[in-house]
Amino acid sequence: MSQPAGEFAFIARHFRSLAGPGALALSDDAAVFMPPAGRELVVCADAMVAGVHFLPDDPSYDIGRKLLRVNLSDLAAMGAVPLGYLMTVSVPPDLPSDWFEGFSAGLAADQATYGLSLLGGDTTSTTGPLVLSLTILGHVAPGEAVRRNGARPGDGVWVTGTIGDGSLGLACLQGELDDPTGFLADRYHVPQPRLGLALSRLVHAAIDVSDGLVQDLGHLCRESGVGAVVEATLVPASDAARVAGAAWLERRLTGGDDYELLLAVPADAEAILLRAAAAAGVALTRIGTFETGPARVRVLAANGSELVFRSPGWSHVSDAFGVRG
Amino acid sequence: MSQPAGEFAFIARHFRSLAGPGALALSDDAAVFMPPAGRELVVCADAMVAGVHFLPDDPSYDIGRKLLRVNLSDLAAMGAVPLGYLMTVSVPPDLPSDWFEGFSAGLAADQATYGLSLLGGDTTSTTGPLVLSLTILGHVAPGEAVRRNGARPGDGVWVTGTIGDGSLGLACLQGELDDPTGFLADRYHVPQPRLGLALSRLVHAAIDVSDGLVQDLGHLCRESGVGAVVEATLVPASDAARVAGAAWLERRLTGGDDYELLLAVPADAEAILLRAAAAAGVALTRIGTFETGPARVRVLAANGSELVFRSPGWSHVSDAFGVRG
Repeated sequence: MSQPAGEFAFIARHFRSLAGPGALALSDDAAVFMPPAGRELVVCADAMVAGVHFLPDDPSYDIGRKLLRVNLSDLAAMGAVPLGYLMTVSVPPDLPSDWFEGFSAGLAADQATYGLSLLGGDTTSTTGPLVLSLTILGHVAPGEAVRRNGARPGDGVWVTGTIGDGSLGLACLQGELDDPTGFLADRYHVPQPRLGLALSRLVHAAIDVSDGLVQDLGHLCRESGVGAVVEATLVPASDAARVAGAAWLERRLTGGDDYELLLAVPADAEAILLRAAAAAGVALTRIGTFETGPARVRVLAANGSELVFRSPGWSHVSDAFGVRG
Repeated sequence: MSQPAGEFAFIARHFRSLAGPGALALSDDAAVFMPPAGRELVVCADAMVAGVHFLPDDPSYDIGRKLLRVNLSDLAAMGAVPLGYLMTVSVPPDLPSDWFEGFSAGLAADQATYGLSLLGGDTTSTTGPLVLSLTILGHVAPGEAVRRNGARPGDGVWVTGTIGDGSLGLACLQGELDDPTGFLADRYHVPQPRLGLALSRLVHAAIDVSDGLVQDLGHLCRESGVGAVVEATLVPASDAARVAGAAWLERRLTGGDDYELLLAVPADAEAILLRAAAAAGVALTRIGTFETGPARVRVLAANGSELVFRSPGWSHVSDAFGVRG
C-alpha cells in the first residue's frame, strides 16, 4: 500500500508542460477557472485499457492522441467546443520509463491542434494493465447541445468521413488483413474528431460511431423512438477499405472505432450542412433515412434484401454511462 | 478486443438512479448543464485501484463512499462547494456481480449527504484489478479558492479532526494492531471530508492530509516558500489512537489516509474560524507555526528535540498532478 515518493518528479517531467490556465501549474489538487459566461458546460469521460482499447505495442504517442480524440469525438457529437481535460493514469510497474514521453508528446500535439489543455489529474500504480481515464470539458450555447433523442421520421441518416477503416485497421494490426500503405492502421490509431461542423440547430440528433455504425445508429433510434433504413452501398468506404473488398462489409459496418459522426439531418438543413462540411474539409454522405416504426436498424443490400449480421456491434468494451451497448 | 454488449443493462441497473439534472439520464455520451452564474469552477480527479488504495475485501459500499469522499476532500481543501462528478470503472471479469450493488448504494447515500449527483462516465473491462477513477466538479466565488501557496511565516498550523486514525485503521485491517471498537478501521474505510467550513478569506493556505501529515505539510511549505515547526504532542489523537500508544507516533504523523484539512491560519482569523468549526461540529487544533526559512518541516518532541522519521510520508501511491509526492 505504499511506495517511495516519486510521482512529484514524474508529474513534473511528463505532465506539467501540458497544464493550461486554471490548472494552477498542477501544484494544487484541483484546477480553478471561470467557465465561459452564458455557455452550458458539456462533460464526459472515457477510459482506455491496455489490451482492450489499444494494443500493448501501439506507439504511446498515438495512444495519448487517441485517448484525447475519443473524448473530443464525444464533444463533437454534442456540437460542443473543447475547454480542457483531466486525466488519471494507473501505471503497471513494468511500463518502460520512456513510455510517458511519447504519451505526453502526443497529448501536447493534440492540445495545440484542438485548443485545449490539461487541468489536472492523478497518477496511481496498478498491478494490472495500464488504465487511462480522461474527463473532458467543453461548452455550448444554452439549449444547443445536440442530443441523441431528436431524430425524426424522414430525416436523412448521414455520416462524416469513411466508415470501417478503424476496425479494418485493427484487423491489419492483428495480421488478418494487408495494409500496404498503413492507412488503415493509422485510422485505428488516430481518430479524427469531427469538431467544427456547427451542428447545433442544423441536425436533429447526433452520435459518434465508436461501437459500430449499426449499433450506434440503433442507439440513436432507441433514444429517438424511430427506426432507420441504411443502404449498404451508400456507406462511404476509403480506397483502402474498398481494396479489402466485400468480404469485409460486415466488419466495416459493425466493427467500431470509426469516431465519425452519425447525424439525423432534416431535408431543409442539408445544403447548409454540406457547405459547412466542405469548408471544414470533411466528407458528408447520406446513407439512409429515419422512419416511423420500432427502434430498429435495417441495412439493405444493393438488391434491396436485408443484410443480417452476426452482431449489431462489436463493442470495444468502452461504454459511456449512456446507451452505448 | 470485444465482448457481448451488456453494459447498457449494467449501467441502467447500477448507475442510472445516481444521475442528476444535466446528466441527460446518462442516455447521451455527455452531460450538459449551466454552471452556477458568476462562480469559478473547481475540478479535480482521483483514481483508486484495488490492492493499492483499498483492500480487495473492503465492503463495496464503503469503497463507493471513499472514492467520492477523497475527491470531496480535495474540494473541501479548496473551499469549494460540490456540484457533480463523472466516474470511469474498469472491471475485472471475476468481480462478483453484486459488487456494484453495494458500490452504487454507497454513492447514493453520499450523494444525498453531500448534495451532488452523477453526471456521466464510462465502464470498461480490464484483465487487472478493479480501477475506479472519479472526476469531481465544484464551484467557488471568484478568486476565493484556497490555494497551497499562501502560507506566511507566523501563521498557525492547524488541523481538523484527529490525525493518524486512517493509517492505524489500515494497520488494524492488516492485523498489526487491535481495533476492539472498529473505530480505526472505520476511519480508514470512510473518510470525513471537512466541507462547509467557509475557509475562503480566512485561511492563507490549505491542503487535505492524504499522504501523511508531515509530507502534506511539506507540500504547503514548498508551495508557499516557508518552513513549519510542529509540536508532536499537540497533534490531536483519537481515543483509539491514544490506546495504540507512543510506538505508533511516526505512523500517525506520516501514514496518510486522514482526509483531514491542514490549514495556514493567520492570528486574526483564529476566533472566527473556531466558531465556524464549532458550528460544523468539527474539531480544530493548532499544532504548530509556519516560519521563515527553507521549505522544511520540523517535528518536535515534548522535550524540544527534533523527531526524525524514516520517511516523511508513506504515499499511498495516489498522486494528484500536483505536489503530492
